[in-house]
Amino acid sequence: MRVKRLDAFFSPGSVAVVGASAEPGKLSNIILESLKKTGFPGEVYPVNPKYSSIGELPCYPSISDIGSNKVDLAVFALPAEKTIDVLRQSAGLIKGAIIIGGGFGETSEEGKVLERKIKEFVKETGIRVIGPNCMGIYDTVSRLDTFFIPGDRIERPVKGGLSILSQSGSFAITAMDELAAEGVGVARVISYGNKADVGETDCLEFLVDDEETTAVAIYIESIEDGRRFVEAAARCAAKKPVMAVKVGKAGAGINAARSHTGAIAGRYEIYRAAFRKAGVIELDGYEDFIAACKAFGTRKEALGNRVMIITDGGGMGVGIADACSASGLEVPPLSEGLIEKLAGVFPPYFAISNPIDLTGSATDGMYAEALERTLSEDVYDMAIVAALWGPPALSDGLPALLADRAEFIKKPVLICSPGGRYSRAKAELFRRSGFPVFPTPEAAVRAASVLARANAIRKETV
Amino acid sequence: MRVKRLDAFFSPGSVAVVGASAEPGKLSNIILESLKKTGFPGEVYPVNPKYSSIGELPCYPSISDIGSNKVDLAVFALPAEKTIDVLRQSAGLIKGAIIIGGGFGETSEEGKVLERKIKEFVKETGIRVIGPNCMGIYDTVSRLDTFFIPGDRIERPVKGGLSILSQSGSFAITAMDELAAEGVGVARVISYGNKADVGETDCLEFLVDDEETTAVAIYIESIEDGRRFVEAAARCAAKKPVMAVKVGKAGAGINAARSHTGAIAGRYEIYRAAFRKAGVIELDGYEDFIAACKAFGTRKEALGNRVMIITDGGGMGVGIADACSASGLEVPPLSEGLIEKLAGVFPPYFAISNPIDLTGSATDGMYAEALERTLSEDVYDMAIVAALWGPPALSDGLPALLADRAEFIKKPVLICSPGGRYSRAKAELFRRSGFPVFPTPEAAVRAASVLARANAIRKETV
Repeated sequence: MRVKRLDAFFSPGSVAVVGASAEPGKLSNIILESLKKTGFPGEVYPVNPKYSSIGELPCYPSISDIGSNKVDLAVFALPAEKTIDVLRQSAGLIKGAIIIGGGFGETSEEGKVLERKIKEFVKETGIRVIGPNCMGIYDTVSRLDTFFIPGDRIERPVKGGLSILSQSGSFAITAMDELAAEGVGVARVISYGNKADVGETDCLEFLVDDEETTAVAIYIESIEDGRRFVEAAARCAAKKPVMAVKVGKAGAGINAARSHTGAIAGRYEIYRAAFRKAGVIELDGYEDFIAACKAFGTRKEALGNRVMIITDGGGMGVGIADACSASGLEVPPLSEGLIEKLAGVFPPYFAISNPIDLTGSATDGMYAEALERTLSEDVYDMAIVAALWGPPALSDGLPALLADRAEFIKKPVLICSPGGRYSRAKAELFRRSGFPVFPTPEAAVRAASVLARANAIRKETV
Repeated sequence: MRVKRLDAFFSPGSVAVVGASAEPGKLSNIILESLKKTGFPGEVYPVNPKYSSIGELPCYPSISDIGSNKVDLAVFALPAEKTIDVLRQSAGLIKGAIIIGGGFGETSEEGKVLERKIKEFVKETGIRVIGPNCMGIYDTVSRLDTFFIPGDRIERPVKGGLSILSQSGSFAITAMDELAAEGVGVARVISYGNKADVGETDCLEFLVDDEETTAVAIYIESIEDGRRFVEAAARCAAKKPVMAVKVGKAGAGINAARSHTGAIAGRYEIYRAAFRKAGVIELDGYEDFIAACKAFGTRKEALGNRVMIITDGGGMGVGIADACSASGLEVPPLSEGLIEKLAGVFPPYFAISNPIDLTGSATDGMYAEALERTLSEDVYDMAIVAALWGPPALSDGLPALLADRAEFIKKPVLICSPGGRYSRAKAELFRRSGFPVFPTPEAAVRAASVLARANAIRKETV
């Protein structure tokens, strides 16, 4: 029942933007522009008594003027006090509301009173609310986009299987923007801010059976309904990977979280225990969050924690191996048989072990051989490839060649591409070939570790 | 005495490239091109019996044909066996040699024999050797550049105060390339590979009194002369920050290091104790190395571990505060007096604490006010500023304005600029204004931690 009522957010037939402005650059105007850009297929109703139309859309003085049963979702872009008044007038006229404005519980005692009024409204009417003090929803399935920052500042990711839940709007937009640049697709991104009503648990309950969502990543400052969260997360984690970063861990972070959304962060150990119980993969901060999102962008599962490392830079290989060991990943040596086979293919000065160091003499073909022959072996669950672009023989065809060779091996291949301008341009080629690309050895290993932990959790829950 | 003899490497009057090729793309030809590009002011002598000239330079059949007392430094770009023969013929004709080729101790028993012959040569002649299996030297002071990868693949950093010592060539070039893209300058970069003769200790001894070098960062796979290293590092660390990453820490990493340069990595605890004794700042892997280099690129010292955080994204602020706490950095709250002052300047919905959250309403001026007023207080040693570019009022003038306000406050200001294309473009503006820029909250905090640890070591050694 509770889940059903979230449909207004994830498959709305129509959206009203309350407090819509005709002025470019205003939050509400950006939302109207975004809905046009994403190609939202339903009706869009600007609401503002000041205008009779905004762009090509007729503008309504109030929600009641639109007509009954016309508005599924209302997005409120109004000052805090005004929001409460208009929200009350909307009772019976809307199925869900997103309140993007701040000035509620996160600021003052007055704000707390206003936020309590939102909660009362939800209780009285049964109308669900996302927010206040949030970005709302970016959804590649329903094509809803209430994130009120223009696409040229915060790029929107393409369609994909990853759904993101975030208490923090800035965390959500920054992650979205970075994932867009990294070519990682998303299904639904939900920023719920102060969580006067809908929070991560409600969203998780919806995502359990959401076929568009293949993995879930959550940013948490606080969870109020611990038992319900664990239950929902466990149900979701039984079907798809659920990962979570909990900030406000200690000292300064706890204080910062309190002043941010008024959240009582609580002892981190409690969260960690809850994650473990629910089968949620624990992430450590922004870097881990991004690495995890990239890892699941590939949609290939690792069936264990054994990593094959292939590089043309010996030192980089050592660094990756070090980071693997520090993260509890195994770097199994090559079998005698495989060493013999590879020795026939590669010059004698190559380090044919794990890591394989193809040295400055590396060619596209050698990378392909090394990757295919090692990853086909049962002892490896995934590969980290660090092509450093020093070797003169490496060509722009390398990424496509590796993608071709890796296609039928159902194991993740993570690309480590540290360096400057040339490497960053080449990294783009790897992205276009469908590989997740990481800027440092440590970042690649973070992703490998998340994949290995996801497998460990899958095994436990089976 | 030992140090003096390294002058041939760091201020050579002339360089011979032995095995020089006229063919573009060959390692030796790239070196000749590089020396032209860097504007090496001394004589350059290509040596190869096959040519009478290469480009505009006359080419010599052998080093002895150049004449006596003409060649300070000879760079050997020859196969391993040939290298030994020609090296022997150079006795008495050169002051130093860089042997870039591989095929020595890192590969086979035969290679080990050849490497021993290099050691015998050094012992017999007193001529110092860098290498084999190395990239040699990139030096913005002497304008020497033996790194045999073209500048369009591996960009060279501008002139600066940081010197880098690296056993691994790939680590050195990747770091150089990344630092170039980040606008961080270097003094001297030395890659010594197998260390048949010159290693990190010799270089450190030289850098103690090198006025061009204001900070030293070292990549270590193994150290053979522990006591000498600690002594040299301590002397250097008493004058300027010395930082080191030791790879081959555990399990897979140790094996990888052995197969890379034949190094016996040894127990990490021994290295850690040596670093502590010498006052060397311990770095953990590539990410920490890059963050540390960027931190010292600014040439501003932190006089403690107390961090002020300013952002327009509350969630990012919490993440930075969390990472600070995890790294042992303090995030002191604002004083009552300061809160009162700032409350007069900023709207009431700003979170005026530490972190300061300027929200989506942030302007350039607010950032400048927040930075100047907080950093002027005695309770803060440095600032991390995370401008997320969501706020519509932020302009391209922000970096220059902050640089202007921070100029007379002798405290480091670290910029955290996570996100996608727009943020990455804006990060460039911060770089141009002289700020070190970090792609994640964690990376900025890594740099802050290195600055704090450098201060702690300075205090100990005073």
